Amino acid sequence: MKTISENASFRGTQGVYTHRSTACNCDMTFALFLPEEAQQGPVPLMWFLSGLTCTHENAMTKAGAQAWAAEHGIAVVFPDTSPRGEDVADDDAYDLGKGAGFYVNATQDPWAPHFQMWDYIADELPALLGENFALDMDRQAICGHSMGGHGALTLAMNLPGRFTSVSAFAPIAHPTSSDWGRKQLAAYLGSDETTWAKHDATLLMAERGFDGPILIDQGTDDQFLDLLKPEALAEAMAKARQNATLRMQPGYDHSYFFISTFMEDHIAFHADALYAR
Amino acid sequence: MKTISENASFRGTQGVYTHRSTACNCDMTFALFLPEEAQQGPVPLMWFLSGLTCTHENAMTKAGAQAWAAEHGIAVVFPDTSPRGEDVADDDAYDLGKGAGFYVNATQDPWAPHFQMWDYIADELPALLGENFALDMDRQAICGHSMGGHGALTLAMNLPGRFTSVSAFAPIAHPTSSDWGRKQLAAYLGSDETTWAKHDATLLMAERGFDGPILIDQGTDDQFLDLLKPEALAEAMAKARQNATLRMQPGYDHSYFFISTFMEDHIAFHADALYAR
Repeated sequence: MKTISENASFRGTQGVYTHRSTACNCDMTFALFLPEEAQQGPVPLMWFLSGLTCTHENAMTKAGAQAWAAEHGIAVVFPDTSPRGEDVADDDAYDLGKGAGFYVNATQDPWAPHFQMWDYIADELPALLGENFALDMDRQAICGHSMGGHGALTLAMNLPGRFTSVSAFAPIAHPTSSDWGRKQLAAYLGSDETTWAKHDATLLMAERGFDGPILIDQGTDDQFLDLLKPEALAEAMAKARQNATLRMQPGYDHSYFFISTFMEDHIAFHADALYAR
Repeated sequence: MKTISENASFRGTQGVYTHRSTACNCDMTFALFLPEEAQQGPVPLMWFLSGLTCTHENAMTKAGAQAWAAEHGIAVVFPDTSPRGEDVADDDAYDLGKGAGFYVNATQDPWAPHFQMWDYIADELPALLGENFALDMDRQAICGHSMGGHGALTLAMNLPGRFTSVSAFAPIAHPTSSDWGRKQLAAYLGSDETTWAKHDATLLMAERGFDGPILIDQGTDDQFLDLLKPEALAEAMAKARQNATLRMQPGYDHSYFFISTFMEDHIAFHADALYAR
């Protein structure tokens, strides 16, 4: 692992690191905010999974997470959204290939050799973080935006016991019935739709739900509302009697201005769950 | 004036606008955050002047100002740092020409036709803002970073009565004795150094001071400390018995991670002064 940069931030440290990923078979970059409490011992960790086109950097610089993470003594990791490098397959469209890993393990060519983002986020990166930083890996929470909200919800429901709590900003809530989802799941996983089901938050909610609290914020002026389908997840959560809050936020769009506005609430929400464990 | 974008942010609106600038003889872009209180009537205004290489966008997205501006009901304007456009002179160096206007009125070629940033910030943009937005132009404060800290301090001291308060993050504090200053002042204003004096915060402090409170934050690990010369301004402020606070912040560098960490303090500082007027 190599340190790219470390900047003092809110009495803690905002770092950027690269490492060789076995899962993705390429170098991967991630950002990690460590609050000052990490100097004394392991601190809880919140994952922030980003959306289409993002790297580790967007949320690190624009989401305003460090202020609240510092207040609650919580670390935040910002992974990249896909494998990177010249030999990694890509597509001209912004929503497939680099910057659009969709948090799945690709089984189809040309994606399979590198696009193993599920294994990267679920297994490889947690192991690396636990070994190298003062993190209490028994206390993890997960959050994400858009494609990253999809990733947060599907990881949380597929890995019961791993995360105390899950939250999302404008998640892709029902990808198997959306143009943000069908195209990518077909490309990465093939045409057998039974392999898609574990990557759809609405289907997972109907099948198993989540063993902790859920918080979802969705702007009513989001330019991608028709692709996100919060109504499908809302119905599934209510039907499942899931412990969940869905807030339709009047006037907000899909941008980081929306995310930063409600980041304080999300981190406080996760802090409650993390410190209760 | 043309609206480029408007995003809901912390119950207010983060807008980006362009207009034809008479002072700079080109189209100029600025960002303006309006808190929700602006829907009821005029609100106080804080200026945020940015540093070398920045546009209106850097601080708008990375400084985390909106959270605290919303809390105090204050608007924040983020101007660009130089004229822009194909017919505007430039230099290969990052610290001269575009992105490096230094908040002066150039008298020398090739800069004079467009580089009139002093008039733009002191006269033209305030008039435009007062006409087009719900802003109480009798209650203005000013803040800036690096080159923008230089701009904030020199504007505040040269325009007594205009600003209730001035603050800066890692300002270029003594440009007439720094490589961040001598090169640019010579290029824009010519070799007669008597014309430089009104653009040097340390010299202005010795000559006249500021008729309100000053807050300056400076990171001790700032990679540009030798160019910024906070010690010169510190000495001048103490000698002048100026109402001022200079905080040397251990471990912080020159980045937006430093700025965002202390933005809450700066906006609270200005709010105290703005609401006391």
